[in-house]
Amino acid sequence: MKSFRVGVLGATGTVGQQIIHRLRRHPWFRVTALAASERSAGKRYADVARWRIAEEIPRDVAALNVQPLEPNLDCDFCLSALDSSVAGPAELAFADAGYPVISNSRNHRMEPDVPLLIPDVNPEHCGLVEIQRKRRGYSSGFIATNPNCSAAGLVVALKPIDDAFGVEALSVVTMQALSGAGFPGVASLDAMDNVIPYISGEEEKLETEPRKILGRLINEPGDPHFGTIESATMRISAQCHRVPVIDGHMEAVSLKLRSHVSPRDVAAALREFSGHARTRKLPSAPAQPIEVREEPDRPQTRLDRDAGNGMAVVVGRVRTCHVLDIRFVVLSHNLGIGAAGAAILNAELLAERGYIVSRGARSSPSTEKSAVRA
Amino acid sequence: MKSFRVGVLGATGTVGQQIIHRLRRHPWFRVTALAASERSAGKRYADVARWRIAEEIPRDVAALNVQPLEPNLDCDFCLSALDSSVAGPAELAFADAGYPVISNSRNHRMEPDVPLLIPDVNPEHCGLVEIQRKRRGYSSGFIATNPNCSAAGLVVALKPIDDAFGVEALSVVTMQALSGAGFPGVASLDAMDNVIPYISGEEEKLETEPRKILGRLINEPGDPHFGTIESATMRISAQCHRVPVIDGHMEAVSLKLRSHVSPRDVAAALREFSGHARTRKLPSAPAQPIEVREEPDRPQTRLDRDAGNGMAVVVGRVRTCHVLDIRFVVLSHNLGIGAAGAAILNAELLAERGYIVSRGARSSPSTEKSAVRA
Amino acid sequence: MKSFRVGVLGATGTVGQQIIHRLRRHPWFRVTALAASERSAGKRYADVARWRIAEEIPRDVAALNVQPLEPNLDCDFCLSALDSSVAGPAELAFADAGYPVISNSRNHRMEPDVPLLIPDVNPEHCGLVEIQRKRRGYSSGFIATNPNCSAAGLVVALKPIDDAFGVEALSVVTMQALSGAGFPGVASLDAMDNVIPYISGEEEKLETEPRKILGRLINEPGDPHFGTIESATMRISAQCHRVPVIDGHMEAVSLKLRSHVSPRDVAAALREFSGHARTRKLPSAPAQPIEVREEPDRPQTRLDRDAGNGMAVVVGRVRTCHVLDIRFVVLSHNLGIGAAGAAILNAELLAERGYIVSRGARSSPSTEKSAVRA
Amino acid sequence: MKSFRVGVLGATGTVGQQIIHRLRRHPWFRVTALAASERSAGKRYADVARWRIAEEIPRDVAALNVQPLEPNLDCDFCLSALDSSVAGPAELAFADAGYPVISNSRNHRMEPDVPLLIPDVNPEHCGLVEIQRKRRGYSSGFIATNPNCSAAGLVVALKPIDDAFGVEALSVVTMQALSGAGFPGVASLDAMDNVIPYISGEEEKLETEPRKILGRLINEPGDPHFGTIESATMRISAQCHRVPVIDGHMEAVSLKLRSHVSPRDVAAALREFSGHARTRKLPSAPAQPIEVREEPDRPQTRLDRDAGNGMAVVVGRVRTCHVLDIRFVVLSHNLGIGAAGAAILNAELLAERGYIVSRGARSSPSTEKSAVRA
Repeated sequence: MKSFRVGVLGATGTVGQQIIHRLRRHPWFRVTALAASERSAGKRYADVARWRIAEEIPRDVAALNVQPLEPNLDCDFCLSALDSSVAGPAELAFADAGYPVISNSRNHRMEPDVPLLIPDVNPEHCGLVEIQRKRRGYSSGFIATNPNCSAAGLVVALKPIDDAFGVEALSVVTMQALSGAGFPGVASLDAMDNVIPYISGEEEKLETEPRKILGRLINEPGDPHFGTIESATMRISAQCHRVPVIDGHMEAVSLKLRSHVSPRDVAAALREFSGHARTRKLPSAPAQPIEVREEPDRPQTRLDRDAGNGMAVVVGRVRTCHVLDIRFVVLSHNLGIGAAGAAILNAELLAERGYIVSRGARSSPSTEKSAVRA
Repeated sequence: MKSFRVGVLGATGTVGQQIIHRLRRHPWFRVTALAASERSAGKRYADVARWRIAEEIPRDVAALNVQPLEPNLDCDFCLSALDSSVAGPAELAFADAGYPVISNSRNHRMEPDVPLLIPDVNPEHCGLVEIQRKRRGYSSGFIATNPNCSAAGLVVALKPIDDAFGVEALSVVTMQALSGAGFPGVASLDAMDNVIPYISGEEEKLETEPRKILGRLINEPGDPHFGTIESATMRISAQCHRVPVIDGHMEAVSLKLRSHVSPRDVAAALREFSGHARTRKLPSAPAQPIEVREEPDRPQTRLDRDAGNGMAVVVGRVRTCHVLDIRFVVLSHNLGIGAAGAAILNAELLAERGYIVSRGARSSPSTEKSAVRA
Repeated sequence: MKSFRVGVLGATGTVGQQIIHRLRRHPWFRVTALAASERSAGKRYADVARWRIAEEIPRDVAALNVQPLEPNLDCDFCLSALDSSVAGPAELAFADAGYPVISNSRNHRMEPDVPLLIPDVNPEHCGLVEIQRKRRGYSSGFIATNPNCSAAGLVVALKPIDDAFGVEALSVVTMQALSGAGFPGVASLDAMDNVIPYISGEEEKLETEPRKILGRLINEPGDPHFGTIESATMRISAQCHRVPVIDGHMEAVSLKLRSHVSPRDVAAALREFSGHARTRKLPSAPAQPIEVREEPDRPQTRLDRDAGNGMAVVVGRVRTCHVLDIRFVVLSHNLGIGAAGAAILNAELLAERGYIVSRGARSSPSTEKSAVRA
Repeated sequence: MKSFRVGVLGATGTVGQQIIHRLRRHPWFRVTALAASERSAGKRYADVARWRIAEEIPRDVAALNVQPLEPNLDCDFCLSALDSSVAGPAELAFADAGYPVISNSRNHRMEPDVPLLIPDVNPEHCGLVEIQRKRRGYSSGFIATNPNCSAAGLVVALKPIDDAFGVEALSVVTMQALSGAGFPGVASLDAMDNVIPYISGEEEKLETEPRKILGRLINEPGDPHFGTIESATMRISAQCHRVPVIDGHMEAVSLKLRSHVSPRDVAAALREFSGHARTRKLPSAPAQPIEVREEPDRPQTRLDRDAGNGMAVVVGRVRTCHVLDIRFVVLSHNLGIGAAGAAILNAELLAERGYIVSRGARSSPSTEKSAVRA
């Protein structure tokens, strides 16, 4: 029976809270340490978290003391929900100290030796962990990341289509939820009765991350590019909008494909996609990665965002496009597969594959490292 | 000084109310007659309208009796906001009885001899009125229409781009306001915290109407197609969404152009577009048909929908598209240039060009016709 | 092990859907029959329900055929979510045919021999069932009701205060959710960015129902009023508002009490209230009927409405009132304890006390009655 | 013809923007100076304001340089929309330097020699200016304030009732708009689909300010309390809620009166209230201070908040209360009569009565004072 102790970095924010909430009855993972900015450090989690989830803080986590962002936490690995303003050096410090860092932050995503993972799409990219460790001189530590909330759901839907028909170009227009901006995030006076056609940095992420995720890890020994990812070549245009919904990103997608196919073929490929067999057995993996709806008016954000506990992607309106080839809408939960759920699922994948190791209680990478040093 | 008496068909609905509201201080038009469904007929307008506009019902209109939908109204012409379930035969009956019918309803829009007008885009299509009259045997009556609310603003923005660079294909994703569905329209339980990726019939309209509006009226005598409209050939893909905003349709647009141009060129073409000189003098025409914003986060629905009293179109984020050529967002007020305001502006155009004629008070096409008949 | 077959009357509406949803894993009750208006009768439930709940329709219910509103359903008792326009005679017909009818509709609530029940407040009013049967000549059938959604939560909070200190007068201002009006209910154009200070009939219900519920069933043999309810005498003023939230009724309450007490005493009475021991064992009863929050800004509608699976009442801001004596806010879920959940809990109470009887499958009150008649 | 130069303190916030917007075509006042926090000082207003009003920044104001919060502005008087964290000493400094400061901030409202003014309610409290000047040694400067946004509309409605029938006690439950919290104010994740039963400090203001406003300025020479305000004695209980509307505070009110009256009498007193004759002539005063609606479902926040350009108060549902005597709802615009509009109207009153003096251009209290000092 697997059992791992988890440290949550950036525990007080929207995504940190979601991680804690999603781990409340997790079969493998138990939250044993919390770290956050200086303002919160030294205080009981329940006193500083400003908890915004309807279900109460899990009792054992509520009582934990928040620690400063320093790599001596009592845990086997870290889930990072750090703000990008601090995640960069902090995550490096933890990895260097021997902690596996499974991060939702954007800072290290595009580094060539950092896997950008979706377990149902590119689990083989886990292999970058070894390359990263070697290159950076890490012992047990490493950094692995999940994609931006607007990219995650989209890439799951792209995967079976790209595999079957080849995606040459992709135009996506997003209608993104307020919780994607964290807390306090968008001011209510900006959000109510409004659409904002801009989210800082979002379009850039959405236009680059899918190409890395759908890229190929070159692992033929002797290949001069061994250990690097060959990006997918599809052209991507993203236009991102904030709309007044609480959770759930809706995206209108149009694709140019390498082969001529009917909407029926595309819907079938989506419906039959079962992801990876080993992924299916991970505790947070949805039974079915993609749900395809037939009704003309589905998915709807409020009705469908919780599919598969927020870890499934819901596709609808698969039709012929009069400009490119195929169009559809895809809905995903920005805090589930788009953030906290994605990081947890990645940790499950990496634990199942042995990249994360369980140590005895009260032992942690840093104490071991100290012991070694001593 | 022009002075016309207006009859409003479908006076109690959302668009009917907007027409009455927008005519409250009109320099040329005065509401003298109201017609609506049987349920309301015979009653004081103020008692049946369920008025939903913050400013009060204009006093003289409040006191009018609503009449049944029969073509003997005391007015020079009709503005029709009829529901499409009744507009078809009703508008025909009025036109046949001699009334110019300027309609917001979709029923007759795509008929070959019915002009689908935007005064700043295709005023020359007014010429269809004569062809219509001849073909149908109308005396003073005719039907003219304005486009669907999601098409109107888009076409204004397309016009200068198409003229300058040629639009080959167009992909548009809309985020449309609740008031576009009329009253009661969308149930609040469907609207709140939700995006609905479907509006019945909307995508079809948005994929066909712009081609007629941007088409060319063949008026070379002797041409075998004389008096018909040669549609524009651009391919259009539309994906329509209902989002929880009250008024204002935001649309994310991507264009394939016939010539290679920079976003700067496109923005300049949009900014310099001044529409038609004669249109500029119409009372409801905005000073500038298109406003181009430079800020990265504008237009925003709530802040910009009232530009030019809801008659101007606001464009922002003009950029290179990585899949097609150029992309931008366009915002327009679905009840202004998208419905009530559009119908009024069309009436102004048709009055200014002599297609609508002012008669003496208490005279109307039907009384004249009866007189002739008698 | 208890096992009962349930017929749902008015199965397609908002409350009917909630009943079906809440029974999806019920230990005692199984939905075996559905009835609705003529429009839906004869069709598969999944085809007519316009299901508005994120979790899917329970599979066995989806496949049921909707039957007309006639008292020959295959079930042991009925849960009624009928619209008040049809509930009156329909529920009478079912009761007369031998069906226990546990109703959420308002029609029969205030009849003197119909119990208006909240299991944690007045379970002894179940006794009215016998009186009702005797008086009306019902065999196994009867009608029992739950209160209006705005009254239910309030009365739970009043109960311990009234018991301990005596409530003399009560002023309540409600901020009620949109789902309280059913579907389609409030138009989005009325709901968005708006407060409506009026809900038809609501204030009357809120000013009368609590007095019946908190009244005393006179059951001393020989008392000339035996078998009637002596109403509580508190004066009630209710002002009801619709606010743009989806679920959850918030109510600001101010009380005049018979004895002088501190807010601390009142909070203690609320916190210690454990309802009825036998009620605690019913499957739908919350572990604790009332949760008292100490934070200055709780309960909040979105965060707290699901307390106790929507069956608990959350009270906060218990303070001295400068005009009456004590004030506080109370939040309850209008579809849980305020409607569907309340009806189910009442059915559990009545089943546990033997008023509802389980028959063999394929037997129902009506078939038995026919058998007797034959 | 009156002509005054206005300096706006706290010009970049929500209320500061509203002041600038409302003065864009003012017959007496012209904005000539802007001051704000250090962050903005030295920059063009258009570059720092983050303007959130649909209509553009008035062109002459857009070009002004924002100055630091020091009392040497080129203006005849100041309108202060300063945040309460800085308003205290800053406003004192301006008053001391000779500037009349007409403030929307709460800091000085309850000081005994500072008038808390509503021109239609207690214009005679202007007399406190002289007492304040004498007591504090101010020359031309002074501080005058308007009430909190939730108190302003309420007090206008109370005034005619108190005058005619005597208000003994008052219970008020508010449903307040998001813009009352300024920008960024309430986070959208807190606002959407939620009611928050708490606004920091709000209930205290609402329970004290009306008593000062409705109090009597003792101005009988020789009275030992000469120059002080004898507070009204009514008891007030306020329960304040934030609801998801953009603008407009709805309040449910219940009153205990000294005399027995019918709702009809109260409605008549409200309807006939014409405020003060001299106030009626002020540019920002609404034609009628109170509008009384007869419909059961009015006022509604979105439809009625702009009555009298946001300066009128709308009352509806005047009825008998079963606990106190009379109840009704009152709606007022929190940025109109509740903030920016109120400050401007107070400045008009004080200018009309000679407390604010117009100087030559480029002269200001501080330059004169320096001149005197020199």
